[in-house]
Amino acid sequence: MFAEIVADRHRQERTGVGEVVYGQGKSLDQIAAAIEALRDAHPVLVTRLAAAHGPALRERFPDGCLWPEAGLFCVGRDICAPCPETEAEVAIVTAGTTDLPVAREALGAARFFGLKAHLVADVGVAGIHRLMAHLDTLRRARVVIAVAGMEGALPSVLGGLVQAPLIAVPTSTGYGASFGGLAALLAMLNSCAPGIGVVNIDNGFGAAALARKILGAGAQIRVEAPAACQGAGE
Amino acid sequence: MFAEIVADRHRQERTGVGEVVYGQGKSLDQIAAAIEALRDAHPVLVTRLAAAHGPALRERFPDGCLWPEAGLFCVGRDICAPCPETEAEVAIVTAGTTDLPVAREALGAARFFGLKAHLVADVGVAGIHRLMAHLDTLRRARVVIAVAGMEGALPSVLGGLVQAPLIAVPTSTGYGASFGGLAALLAMLNSCAPGIGVVNIDNGFGAAALARKILGAGAQIRVEAPAACQGAGE
Amino acid sequence: MFAEIVADRHRQERTGVGEVVYGQGKSLDQIAAAIEALRDAHPVLVTRLAAAHGPALRERFPDGCLWPEAGLFCVGRDICAPCPETEAEVAIVTAGTTDLPVAREALGAARFFGLKAHLVADVGVAGIHRLMAHLDTLRRARVVIAVAGMEGALPSVLGGLVQAPLIAVPTSTGYGASFGGLAALLAMLNSCAPGIGVVNIDNGFGAAALARKILGAGAQIRVEAPAACQGAGE
Amino acid sequence: MFAEIVADRHRQERTGVGEVVYGQGKSLDQIAAAIEALRDAHPVLVTRLAAAHGPALRERFPDGCLWPEAGLFCVGRDICAPCPETEAEVAIVTAGTTDLPVAREALGAARFFGLKAHLVADVGVAGIHRLMAHLDTLRRARVVIAVAGMEGALPSVLGGLVQAPLIAVPTSTGYGASFGGLAALLAMLNSCAPGIGVVNIDNGFGAAALARKILGAGAQIRVEAPAACQGAGE
Amino acid sequence: MFAEIVADRHRQERTGVGEVVYGQGKSLDQIAAAIEALRDAHPVLVTRLAAAHGPALRERFPDGCLWPEAGLFCVGRDICAPCPETEAEVAIVTAGTTDLPVAREALGAARFFGLKAHLVADVGVAGIHRLMAHLDTLRRARVVIAVAGMEGALPSVLGGLVQAPLIAVPTSTGYGASFGGLAALLAMLNSCAPGIGVVNIDNGFGAAALARKILGAGAQIRVEAPAACQGAGE
Amino acid sequence: MFAEIVADRHRQERTGVGEVVYGQGKSLDQIAAAIEALRDAHPVLVTRLAAAHGPALRERFPDGCLWPEAGLFCVGRDICAPCPETEAEVAIVTAGTTDLPVAREALGAARFFGLKAHLVADVGVAGIHRLMAHLDTLRRARVVIAVAGMEGALPSVLGGLVQAPLIAVPTSTGYGASFGGLAALLAMLNSCAPGIGVVNIDNGFGAAALARKILGAGAQIRVEAPAACQGAGE
Amino acid sequence: MFAEIVADRHRQERTGVGEVVYGQGKSLDQIAAAIEALRDAHPVLVTRLAAAHGPALRERFPDGCLWPEAGLFCVGRDICAPCPETEAEVAIVTAGTTDLPVAREALGAARFFGLKAHLVADVGVAGIHRLMAHLDTLRRARVVIAVAGMEGALPSVLGGLVQAPLIAVPTSTGYGASFGGLAALLAMLNSCAPGIGVVNIDNGFGAAALARKILGAGAQIRVEAPAACQGAGE
Amino acid sequence: MFAEIVADRHRQERTGVGEVVYGQGKSLDQIAAAIEALRDAHPVLVTRLAAAHGPALRERFPDGCLWPEAGLFCVGRDICAPCPETEAEVAIVTAGTTDLPVAREALGAARFFGLKAHLVADVGVAGIHRLMAHLDTLRRARVVIAVAGMEGALPSVLGGLVQAPLIAVPTSTGYGASFGGLAALLAMLNSCAPGIGVVNIDNGFGAAALARKILGAGAQIRVEAPAACQGAGE
Repeated sequence: MFAEIVADRHRQERTGVGEVVYGQGKSLDQIAAAIEALRDAHPVLVTRLAAAHGPALRERFPDGCLWPEAGLFCVGRDICAPCPETEAEVAIVTAGTTDLPVAREALGAARFFGLKAHLVADVGVAGIHRLMAHLDTLRRARVVIAVAGMEGALPSVLGGLVQAPLIAVPTSTGYGASFGGLAALLAMLNSCAPGIGVVNIDNGFGAAALARKILGAGAQIRVEAPAACQGAGE
Repeated sequence: MFAEIVADRHRQERTGVGEVVYGQGKSLDQIAAAIEALRDAHPVLVTRLAAAHGPALRERFPDGCLWPEAGLFCVGRDICAPCPETEAEVAIVTAGTTDLPVAREALGAARFFGLKAHLVADVGVAGIHRLMAHLDTLRRARVVIAVAGMEGALPSVLGGLVQAPLIAVPTSTGYGASFGGLAALLAMLNSCAPGIGVVNIDNGFGAAALARKILGAGAQIRVEAPAACQGAGE
Repeated sequence: MFAEIVADRHRQERTGVGEVVYGQGKSLDQIAAAIEALRDAHPVLVTRLAAAHGPALRERFPDGCLWPEAGLFCVGRDICAPCPETEAEVAIVTAGTTDLPVAREALGAARFFGLKAHLVADVGVAGIHRLMAHLDTLRRARVVIAVAGMEGALPSVLGGLVQAPLIAVPTSTGYGASFGGLAALLAMLNSCAPGIGVVNIDNGFGAAALARKILGAGAQIRVEAPAACQGAGE
Repeated sequence: MFAEIVADRHRQERTGVGEVVYGQGKSLDQIAAAIEALRDAHPVLVTRLAAAHGPALRERFPDGCLWPEAGLFCVGRDICAPCPETEAEVAIVTAGTTDLPVAREALGAARFFGLKAHLVADVGVAGIHRLMAHLDTLRRARVVIAVAGMEGALPSVLGGLVQAPLIAVPTSTGYGASFGGLAALLAMLNSCAPGIGVVNIDNGFGAAALARKILGAGAQIRVEAPAACQGAGE
Repeated sequence: MFAEIVADRHRQERTGVGEVVYGQGKSLDQIAAAIEALRDAHPVLVTRLAAAHGPALRERFPDGCLWPEAGLFCVGRDICAPCPETEAEVAIVTAGTTDLPVAREALGAARFFGLKAHLVADVGVAGIHRLMAHLDTLRRARVVIAVAGMEGALPSVLGGLVQAPLIAVPTSTGYGASFGGLAALLAMLNSCAPGIGVVNIDNGFGAAALARKILGAGAQIRVEAPAACQGAGE
Repeated sequence: MFAEIVADRHRQERTGVGEVVYGQGKSLDQIAAAIEALRDAHPVLVTRLAAAHGPALRERFPDGCLWPEAGLFCVGRDICAPCPETEAEVAIVTAGTTDLPVAREALGAARFFGLKAHLVADVGVAGIHRLMAHLDTLRRARVVIAVAGMEGALPSVLGGLVQAPLIAVPTSTGYGASFGGLAALLAMLNSCAPGIGVVNIDNGFGAAALARKILGAGAQIRVEAPAACQGAGE
Repeated sequence: MFAEIVADRHRQERTGVGEVVYGQGKSLDQIAAAIEALRDAHPVLVTRLAAAHGPALRERFPDGCLWPEAGLFCVGRDICAPCPETEAEVAIVTAGTTDLPVAREALGAARFFGLKAHLVADVGVAGIHRLMAHLDTLRRARVVIAVAGMEGALPSVLGGLVQAPLIAVPTSTGYGASFGGLAALLAMLNSCAPGIGVVNIDNGFGAAALARKILGAGAQIRVEAPAACQGAGE
Repeated sequence: MFAEIVADRHRQERTGVGEVVYGQGKSLDQIAAAIEALRDAHPVLVTRLAAAHGPALRERFPDGCLWPEAGLFCVGRDICAPCPETEAEVAIVTAGTTDLPVAREALGAARFFGLKAHLVADVGVAGIHRLMAHLDTLRRARVVIAVAGMEGALPSVLGGLVQAPLIAVPTSTGYGASFGGLAALLAMLNSCAPGIGVVNIDNGFGAAALARKILGAGAQIRVEAPAACQGAGE
């Protein structure tokens, strides 16, 4: 009988992004086993963690960092320490409040990768002045991640305002003819602003991984010790 | 053998919008017959006119007004007389130059309905300052028609800027994952800006008809005599 | 940590339609916070309210007006006071009984916007005489909203009967090849009756917002004090 | 080497509907060979005949009956003899003029099957009074075939008016979100009027074949000799 | 306040098929009210009845006939009395056991319409000999209803074997690329056997209504008194 | 500048199926260069050859074997020599005459791979007796390839009749709701007959390659010298 | 009243693959009845067994072999006895851990058919070295089954590495734009590696049935007595 | 009358990527006018240039650089000067020869942006060794662009091998179930390798623009004078 978890402990060296644990559909025991298999090699991030598993995981790994609103759990790194808006190298922008869980997944994962990330929320294009108020932050960032559901117009507007590479994350926010995020996905792929990289619907983690790759293997990675995780901060 | 053209000469009374001739797929003779059947009752507009039919139609109806770039031909009304930007009650806004034929269909049809319409072109959301430069015009208009292909974001941005009712026309401009205008159509239906009425892909005429209905049956309809049609003006 | 709710208190001035609270997926606390943030600026409407939240909201805001069958809650305006059929400026027409929740959302939202709205229910096209019986009402209305699922034929028939601008709301009523409202949506977009503005599937609120914009910012808005909300009336 | 055409000469006995020749994509020689293979057994109908093949076929089969506007050619039966409206057992109703080719295919095929069929054209639902003017004919018919593109609403309205079984034929008439007839097809499948049988997009022949089966194998089949085919009559 | 149920008591005269109660999504009280509103005019059928409502309905209408496996309840007619295979004028054929609920809806509804119907189950095309064993029954029937999910091939095979008109009902049976019945629906619409009328996915009732219309308004309708409904028989 | 054609001359050893030249969209020069690059290593097959390129290719490679109706050209092997029905190890079955080009691609490719293949044409399921007439051939074959468009029912029927592994090839034959072969593809994937391997729409070559792999690397491959190619035989 | 289960006890002779019981949506009693009806003729496999039914089935059939993780239950054959990697004639390869249930269904079904099958798990293409480590096993196998969700790239890579026929099973693993397995299905159908047979999404059983047919009716079938089923082994 | 071309001459400052001319659907005169409007501000690139326009453009702008196979024309920069494989900071990898036009668009555009780019062609995943032969180049690059049609598996394999950010470009190469590039697009969005940014189908230019943004506004941009454009080099 083979072990279900075949840890790919060298992935980080090969690809710059270590293996993480995709929590959806996994039992608590499967997740815990995966953490054990990887934690010697490097810090471990669990994504798409069911709400019910959170407290139990924290009991097993008391030094772990749990962020329920983001569906994240992390061992070996603090993914909850906020970063001041003025220092953000990754700006994560979200159109509406229902896009927040996906944006938080991106935010926590970016921190897991050692990046200084900040979340600018609720600046959808139907109130363009709200976006403009954060223009300095967005122009200072070295990567901008735009998270939007419904009509997915945010990246197009941002694409005309900033020089940084732009990563677009469609979300499944919406109803009816949003078809589970298809409308936002198609909009982002067809953006008239050139130079936007699109990831899968609701894939906040993937956006953070691409940001990590963009900011480079050679860059100085800042890793805070998880000494004092105090719950999620934004 | 029945007559192919059963003119609905009373439609204008019933619905406020008289029957027009949909030119696509019709032969020159069919179009001419339709014009003859309707012209006694009211002015006649032909839409989606094939380029090849234009000169021949003008020969048969020398007082007709031909606008090839809009695919329009009109008998009994001047659809080419420009309206100054400052007097426009209907503002037609277009995202890119490839959306122009659809926008022109809307423009010419609006004039056919006796409306003062003006076209503001090439103000896509990836250069939001271009849109802002026309804000006065847009805010003065009583109806705004937004014509956009690709990601179809223009109505969402406009929806947050103007009070007038907004009509969104998706166009088939684009390639790949635009799927013939589907991306823009879905974006417009899912707009986070409330109060947008969407029409079919490339349906500039339908947008003008809705504008006409919005501006009301009771309104004073200005009808210029087609005395001196001098080709399309914008 | 940023506040989740960034109230856009000036949206009403900019767009003629103030910010409302989209209730779906929000917790009771999030909804209550949003109401508090907006109620000083203007009356507040909550849409897509989960049935479970209704009584609790009413407890927190005792002067609020709750309409469970419409998924609506309103503070600062009476959305339940019926309007006589003969006085309706907005006629909301619905094809079948299963379309009623969406039609009620449109009805309540129209009242929230200060419009005189009346609901004509269960007049689907398979019994065209039922529709004809209400023709006077429909022709008197200044805006007609047609709500229909399944084959979505109602707007096409109405479009040939009335002069008022027509707003079409496809609903997810149906099964099998209705594909969650797609069949009705496509039918409405392809209507042979010109001048129909389509909104998203099940988007009763959007239809009311468009009606509000059509009837104009300058119009005298009638606002009844919510002194005596007595439950939903139609 | 096998023969490409394996005539199924006994199909008429088995199924009540003899084999016909589907002309699309076939060369003139292939079509002629198919006619030769079948004409001894029973009259032969060719459908979807390319315009270019018509005159050449008539040269080869001088007693054949050619109807170019319907894409039909027939040997052994007159498919062009008109039937008075008052005697029609099959009423074919069409929404718009662009649906006529499909309706004519149904009409000619119905005649091929020996049925008394009549075509009522251009009675789309946006002018419901035009439909009502033919109600006597429609109610007298034993089968009604409704041919419609765009929003495909015609069968739903008819379904509430007549007792006869109703066959719905969606057509590819339309553009944009009609998606080649998909919109009309979905509308017809979701009709709120029960008891409608739908055939494939543009499948006029299939509708006629179903009408033939409905009117029964045992019925007296009237077959006019093709003595004096004088071109298509409606 | 309007009544939710506007009974269309004259529909039977107009269309030959009286109004029935579509039970899905309706509360017990709504269903009971609809039965009360219609039962004076003619017998009443409830379709898509939730399992939980069955016993309660029977308590309210003790002479009603309940068939849980078909999701049917009927007042005023016995829909459970079996018909011998040799006397069936409507043969209902089903491909697999999971298609049975839809086939039973068709069977019960056919009986409601006074037709002699019989169900031949589990004769899918992957075991063609099973179908052949019932060929006599199928050829004797005046209408054949084919119910099939998955690849939906049954009507194509039947279409080559019987003369009777064929009604095809796609079902949502299947998984993966069946896409909720879309695969079967498309197969049936594209059948190479001409003369097949297709209804919506899972629409057993619609198939029975079409059978009723085909077998004619003039036909002698046999109505058994519901004196002794003893549960569903097939 | 890199060479466009990087011949993978060892693919046959690795995978049992050597590289072939996909002709679609390639210029005559590109095709000829590809043949030159590969012909030393093993025989070369060109698929999807445009009709216009055939004669020119034969001029350049006079010993090549051209089969225009199959879109094939071959150097180094005779793909046109017929195989008697009684000796076929691969039986290729096709539903209608319009499926023949795809079936011929499979037939020629099977011969290219050294297999004894025979084509049984025009045995669609709407005339099941035609299929039964070839049952001996089908049961003797070691692999059966079923080629069908429209409703794609042929593999399901075959799957219940033969023991050999069955390869299903959907074709784009059809119109309307066949959506370019999608209907047949979905039907084949959902077949109730287990053990069917499906390839892409119109992919006759892929079916032959799978047949080749199934019949095994170790099998004795019969390769006829292309001494006397005399045009396509079936 | 007909019996719901019409056992096709001769299917094995006709097709080489005996009838199995598809458990999804069936009640415990229906499943037990089906087992009883078939077990005299040959061993019986139940697929897609609900977790809740497992223990009860084992109680009724104490000598049955239950494998909950595969959704399988078998009477008359041991489907749990592992096969050493070096002896596998069927190699089942899976991309990720979430694909395991489908892979196990294929594994158990292959054993049911008497094949020596082995499962190589978690060797997705994003860590190609993991796949390479098993190349000997894969090249020794006579059939390779590739099970993959998400982007479904595994069969394409395998297709360039092995000579054996390749069966591709797309799974519904994924989210967002995987659309329930559609992404993987399309990828596999479009593989640039020729000779891949694709089955339905999540259809592990179908892949095993095709493997069984490929390995031939004439082959010596090894059937272990179910004397000592000890739970699933891989 | 407004000017059709409203040059956005400051876009480069705002976004780091200057406006380019999208040539598809534009007349020669429109393209020339656009070049004139922009060339004072910065070099000008025309993409998707119709083959017919190339020579005429070169006549008007004799110092322009024309690359017909890439559909590109450039004024003010040499987009044809090759870059040695060992110096490439952007590696463009393509799966098959039919993907080359899109890859060349990316290559030429990257050079337009002043990047050192190199094209590695024809290394599809069905011959994984071909990819491995270029691993050094790929690992040295600072950005990798993967261009692939059909099953679109190339980015997934690359994603497990390199540390650089990966941009995936699906192409419309393929037929049947590739649905114009949809299969490749979905595969890339669902890649199991994290950190891939996807652009629209066939959007080589967009990939280059993203690469340019990734490599940073601050980086030293190397701009060769277009002194000696000698046709496209790779």
